[in-house]
Amino acid sequence: MSLTLLIGNKNYSSWSMRPWVLMKAMEIPFEERALRFDFTPDSAFYKEVRAVAPTGKVPVLVEDGLAVWDSLAIVEYLAERFPDRGVWPTDRARRARARTVCAEMHSGFGALRSHCPMNIDADLQTVGPQLLAREPALRADLERIGQLWTDTLQACGGPFLFGTFSAADAFFAPVVMRVTRYGLPLPPLAQAYAQRLEATPAVQDWVAAALAEKDFLDFEEPYRDVSGPVPVLKPVI
Amino acid sequence: MSLTLLIGNKNYSSWSMRPWVLMKAMEIPFEERALRFDFTPDSAFYKEVRAVAPTGKVPVLVEDGLAVWDSLAIVEYLAERFPDRGVWPTDRARRARARTVCAEMHSGFGALRSHCPMNIDADLQTVGPQLLAREPALRADLERIGQLWTDTLQACGGPFLFGTFSAADAFFAPVVMRVTRYGLPLPPLAQAYAQRLEATPAVQDWVAAALAEKDFLDFEEPYRDVSGPVPVLKPVI
Ligand SMILES: N[C@@H](CCC(=O)N[C@@H](CS)C(=O)NCC(=O)O)C(=O)O
Ligand SMILES: N[C@@H](CCC(=O)N[C@@H](CS)C(=O)NCC(=O)O)C(=O)O
Repeated sequence: MSLTLLIGNKNYSSWSMRPWVLMKAMEIPFEERALRFDFTPDSAFYKEVRAVAPTGKVPVLVEDGLAVWDSLAIVEYLAERFPDRGVWPTDRARRARARTVCAEMHSGFGALRSHCPMNIDADLQTVGPQLLAREPALRADLERIGQLWTDTLQACGGPFLFGTFSAADAFFAPVVMRVTRYGLPLPPLAQAYAQRLEATPAVQDWVAAALAEKDFLDFEEPYRDVSGPVPVLKPVI
Repeated sequence: MSLTLLIGNKNYSSWSMRPWVLMKAMEIPFEERALRFDFTPDSAFYKEVRAVAPTGKVPVLVEDGLAVWDSLAIVEYLAERFPDRGVWPTDRARRARARTVCAEMHSGFGALRSHCPMNIDADLQTVGPQLLAREPALRADLERIGQLWTDTLQACGGPFLFGTFSAADAFFAPVVMRVTRYGLPLPPLAQAYAQRLEATPAVQDWVAAALAEKDFLDFEEPYRDVSGPVPVLKPVI
């Protein structure tokens, strides 16, 4: 009856961040198995992930031989397994809305994902505005994020999207990392929410571990040539 | 206490097909509101969808003023609302697996989606193999589909992915439409499953309605210039 969560590099793995932050915030005990990203065909990464999950992708939650290899399915698994932790809001309508925004996030925001890959260690404040100026789809994604957070906070009263911290906040934690690192502007309520979410202990713990990694992976770095306090940036083409 | 489902063109709207097929298969009564696709800024489509859902996307399920605007969230809503219909498998491990493959589908298979958009009316048997030859990501997506269906059928014994028809089958119904229309090859067990799924009454009803639409939308047609028994195909570049 022990839970193991396979994750990737904390600096880069946005999908891994969601269940990790959720489980920490909900005080669900688990063992963490951190695997260094290496997407070459027969890497140690693929070897270990494929031993439990056919996709070869992280995160994967394993319990008693049962593997759940998608971050949204992991959330539903945890909600069933720990029904009193508040993974989803207890109110029926709020729960439906929380699932809706998580599923919207899960299948959408392709421009935000591809143009602004998560990179917690990177200061890309000069890059974000250039990307925004160039990419209409990125502007549309950011506008929807601002609207989604604002509407939900107003409907439910905050401080988190559906009142107390839930899976929805864990799902948007990687978006907050992008917003702050790439200097993407948001309306005031959404901006304040991003700050609140970044300040939660579970997110802070992930961020601290990400910064401690110091593992610069070139294939995850479209914008930096090297890391460090004065990063060398590649030209944004 | 009545359910309304907003959907797009049955010929093209793969996301709409999922909850529609699920609700028909589960004999959940609902009113259907079919909206003709028109993605120009102030279209009647957007006007009607945005009145209930901020994304402006279909499907949307509406019940008593509550709108659920994502196909996976609709499934979870229905599972809670009709707990005895078998939306998800009753066995805990199977349910976790069913949610996993639905969430995998929801957030992935980008190459299959973009290169082979659903088009039930179209015979694109000559197009699919050309696309497969050209696009490694499409080959990878198709290979994963074949593996996913085969593994799941073998683990659970068929005839549907998790035994009896569930949300997972509804989620893969649009993939079956792509496989057959674009002539995409699958391993034998997966191929037989595709045929079984296409033959279910709920899928047959959707297909019949899609074929009856006769609404050729140019922006949904990367491969055809006109419809009809001898389609005029654009060159595949
Ligand atoms: N739908 C999956 C997506 C997971 C995913 O794409 N993970 C990336 C790392 S953040 C990965 O493992 N990639 C390996 C690969 O693409 O081969 C989820 O939500 O868990
Ligand atoms: N994640 C959504 C995606 C829905 C979606 O993309 N729907 C398309 C039609 S199949 C749409 O309404 N597009 C309108 C637009 O992109 O503005 C779901 O699962 O329901």
